[in-house]
Amino acid sequence: MKHLLVVAHGSRRDASNDEVRELVNQMRKHNQTYARIECAFLELAEPSIPDGIQTCIDAGANEVIVLPYFLAAGTHVVNDIPGLIREKQQQHPDVLIRQTGHVGALNGMVDLMLEAAD
Amino acid sequence: MKHLLVVAHGSRRDASNDEVRELVNQMRKHNQTYARIECAFLELAEPSIPDGIQTCIDAGANEVIVLPYFLAAGTHVVNDIPGLIREKQQQHPDVLIRQTGHVGALNGMVDLMLEAAD
Repeated sequence: MKHLLVVAHGSRRDASNDEVRELVNQMRKHNQTYARIECAFLELAEPSIPDGIQTCIDAGANEVIVLPYFLAAGTHVVNDIPGLIREKQQQHPDVLIRQTGHVGALNGMVDLMLEAAD
Repeated sequence: MKHLLVVAHGSRRDASNDEVRELVNQMRKHNQTYARIECAFLELAEPSIPDGIQTCIDAGANEVIVLPYFLAAGTHVVNDIPGLIREKQQQHPDVLIRQTGHVGALNGMVDLMLEAAD
């Protein structure tokens, strides 16, 4: 049971958080890989990243893949999110929790952007 | 002569700005559409968005497509960038300057993210 957790920064602006939730809804519709796709927020919105990971574990995940919805490899991506994952990993050594590259560094971003203006 | 201008927020952290510049370098390598691809920053880094547009115009663009490298449709995407474009458009009525959807809303983002963890 592989679950995907999309983690965004979170915003004071509800519409920005809802934009992430809607993206995750669209991902669910196209999903053929994951038993479950959830989203979580580093701050300013709910659920938190630890709570998002816990939701996946409670639902039976034996692997949780954390995808940072961030454009740059700043301190949130390099330090904060890995730290939160590490804590959860220690609590649940039987579940593999791993972080993918952030969205800005994903293969395919170059082509996505080149096709943007069509 | 269609030019593409990728506009990012800009960061105090040089590495984040360089990450945008490197993405644009990769886009140039894969580009088959645009006479030129440049990047610009809303704040905290150079060149500015007006300067980036002007660079394209000075290089002979008759169309400048501005692609906001932002994940959410916040006030930067909805107000600030359109305002900067409007000013430049008034100075150069013979050049078409238009803004695409921001990266977070691009077709293909859903699939890109679903493929992220492979």
